[in-house]
Amino acid sequence: MVDIATRVYNHKWKIDPIIRSLIDTDFYKLLMCQSIFRNSRNTRVTFSLHNRSKDIRLAELIDEAELRQQLDYARGLKLTRGESTWLRGNTFYGKRQMFRSDFMEWFEGYQLPPYELEIIDGQFHLTFEGPWHEVMLWEIPALAILMELRSRAVLNTMGRFELQVLYARAMARVWEKIEALREIPGLKIADFGTRRRHGFLWQDWCVQAMVEGLGDAAKGGAFTGTSNCLIAMRRDLEAVGTNAHELPMVYAALARTDAELREAPYRVLADWHEEHEGNLRIILPDTYGTAGFLEHAPDWLAGWTGIRIDSGDPITAAETAISWWQARGEDPREKLVIFSDGLDVAEIKALHARFAGRVKVSFGWGTLLTNDFRGLVPGDGLAPFSLVCKAVSADGHPTVKLSDNPEKAMGPAEEVARYKRVFGVGAQQPRAVVV
Amino acid sequence: MVDIATRVYNHKWKIDPIIRSLIDTDFYKLLMCQSIFRNSRNTRVTFSLHNRSKDIRLAELIDEAELRQQLDYARGLKLTRGESTWLRGNTFYGKRQMFRSDFMEWFEGYQLPPYELEIIDGQFHLTFEGPWHEVMLWEIPALAILMELRSRAVLNTMGRFELQVLYARAMARVWEKIEALREIPGLKIADFGTRRRHGFLWQDWCVQAMVEGLGDAAKGGAFTGTSNCLIAMRRDLEAVGTNAHELPMVYAALARTDAELREAPYRVLADWHEEHEGNLRIILPDTYGTAGFLEHAPDWLAGWTGIRIDSGDPITAAETAISWWQARGEDPREKLVIFSDGLDVAEIKALHARFAGRVKVSFGWGTLLTNDFRGLVPGDGLAPFSLVCKAVSADGHPTVKLSDNPEKAMGPAEEVARYKRVFGVGAQQPRAVVV
Repeated sequence: MVDIATRVYNHKWKIDPIIRSLIDTDFYKLLMCQSIFRNSRNTRVTFSLHNRSKDIRLAELIDEAELRQQLDYARGLKLTRGESTWLRGNTFYGKRQMFRSDFMEWFEGYQLPPYELEIIDGQFHLTFEGPWHEVMLWEIPALAILMELRSRAVLNTMGRFELQVLYARAMARVWEKIEALREIPGLKIADFGTRRRHGFLWQDWCVQAMVEGLGDAAKGGAFTGTSNCLIAMRRDLEAVGTNAHELPMVYAALARTDAELREAPYRVLADWHEEHEGNLRIILPDTYGTAGFLEHAPDWLAGWTGIRIDSGDPITAAETAISWWQARGEDPREKLVIFSDGLDVAEIKALHARFAGRVKVSFGWGTLLTNDFRGLVPGDGLAPFSLVCKAVSADGHPTVKLSDNPEKAMGPAEEVARYKRVFGVGAQQPRAVVV
Repeated sequence: MVDIATRVYNHKWKIDPIIRSLIDTDFYKLLMCQSIFRNSRNTRVTFSLHNRSKDIRLAELIDEAELRQQLDYARGLKLTRGESTWLRGNTFYGKRQMFRSDFMEWFEGYQLPPYELEIIDGQFHLTFEGPWHEVMLWEIPALAILMELRSRAVLNTMGRFELQVLYARAMARVWEKIEALREIPGLKIADFGTRRRHGFLWQDWCVQAMVEGLGDAAKGGAFTGTSNCLIAMRRDLEAVGTNAHELPMVYAALARTDAELREAPYRVLADWHEEHEGNLRIILPDTYGTAGFLEHAPDWLAGWTGIRIDSGDPITAAETAISWWQARGEDPREKLVIFSDGLDVAEIKALHARFAGRVKVSFGWGTLLTNDFRGLVPGDGLAPFSLVCKAVSADGHPTVKLSDNPEKAMGPAEEVARYKRVFGVGAQQPRAVVV
């Protein structure tokens, strides 16, 4: 029996919206938003989309009007009663009322701010300018919209069975990965794949496959949760994540002297230290070079719960952190190391084999969980690519990111040179950025 | 929106019936049934299930009560108005009113007759005894029920995502096969996979995949149709097939002298010749050895449309047929050769490469289209196996089949010896029977 009402209702949609909820975003964006709302409400920031994979000419694949429709639809969203209740009432990392009342009241009235869109040389130049805490929430939906519109552009050309077989193959691939991960004793792994996912429904499927294949960590399994708040809410999972490069990048851009600049990354974490404890005290050390950051770090940082490794050679970075903890009199076996850069099964296995027992190892698995469609269509038109949406300026000053991989560096050349000097970053080993 | 009525309706089913229609059977069974209804209405025949794969102990996998429920459900079926209309009104191989009114009137009142079921040494002994035209229609539903109950026994132990991934893998496999078949120029291929299918829905999916991947032959594609009448009706495809071993086997069993026995296989085809023309005049020569059958065949048989090769080495058999046509002054390029024995893509490719252009080549693809679940679950519990349901006696006389492969031979040893003598069948090359 066809449900006629459902069929008719579905026909009424003018578009098939990609972002249907303000919490279809990464948990750490909300955490950071609250922190910015408290500490930096008057800072104006510009976020800008950047496609590192230049050969993928997005503006030739995606119709501009369709993109505008999706962005406009997202702008119409407001936090629902249930979403607000979930954010207010939930326990995150064992802590109740993670989100303060003043922040929640502001968020309940929030809508995504206006955007600027133009096309230059086959690419969309999409920017969001305004108060930092308002524009920063565009990052994830903007990326997810563009990723999914690109998927749709390719999928639109396919027949019904081709589509079914495509997803059959993709599912078999994800499941094989999960079966391989099952072999790793004591594994802890989370989904970090919202921003560059193939599509929302696909991420949701991948998360459910992780739950069935690895088991929910709350019930003794290996799957520690998802960074996606909407999926965490709907699937009754832990929402996970801590903080990102945008905090030190904006703090650094606002520094007026070299001395202030040198202190900026630590000032970020001092603010964070005041607000958060336990599993949220995770250092992201690579914004201006991991080695220098740790070397000059204040002692209280060594007491934090762990570190997230998001660029460069992950083995080097983890070994550097272990030596640093040892030098500061900390026991690395009590420390959490979260690997989150371009992971797939082979890297996860190798890193786990090397570091399990020496530190508490955990993984944030992103694009190659939620968007591994490599080789599944002719011309590889569904392969993931490297799209980012970053804070590019703060109160008129350009931001800079060095990272542990020069391929991921951002900012004007002269500023990059200055930052390298200030942070004592020398030669770096480039690593190909696939996703 | 969940359709509550549908949900409640589904809950009311006491079983999930495997056979839901009397035309969920092979087209050639109905053709042969009509022929028997006309020519041999008083012959009593026993059909009996036989599992050639002895290591698969069906009675330990399948609950007897569940089997009885399924068989009883099938016994309750009657031809629906729509099914009758389709059979009466359809064009088969370009001919209207293939089914005569007297046969259709009988069929409209028909129900599957009683069965006998016992368990001996881990196997179901399932027999159907009665007028030939009544019991012969049990063959396909009985096989399909047992195959699907065995699938269900294995599937019952699997989780939701395991199931989804299982079908994802199976779909990807079928699609890869179809993509490989696409490369063969001028291919003609049909679905012959009803009897040993994984399940009804799976066969239906495979047929639809063939239509999308190869194209309907009616519209210039390579897919010439399905042997399954129900699927042909629902999917608007050609129902295909001609005749099977049961005709010569029963005619031979009824022969009173060696001379009559020797003539029996030709008498079958003489009766068929009167009833049918064109694409239905397909010789199935291997019941008592292809070489001898052709050698002693009357000249009018060389005028038939083609031959179906269903056992032994297909290359030898096809070459024998080509030589035979040439010896009888026929042009093999005008003749149809249908290969239908245990085919998969590699065999189809090789046979097509060898015979295309020399004869009109066509394929009836069975078990490895509709039941290739090899290697997809631990212990290979879903691999297809060799289950048959055959006429074992006629009016109290045992039937015999020699085939071109001694592994497929059937009948009491002394009768097999007599048939070998009468039909001049010498040493034969055994070939493993997988499906």
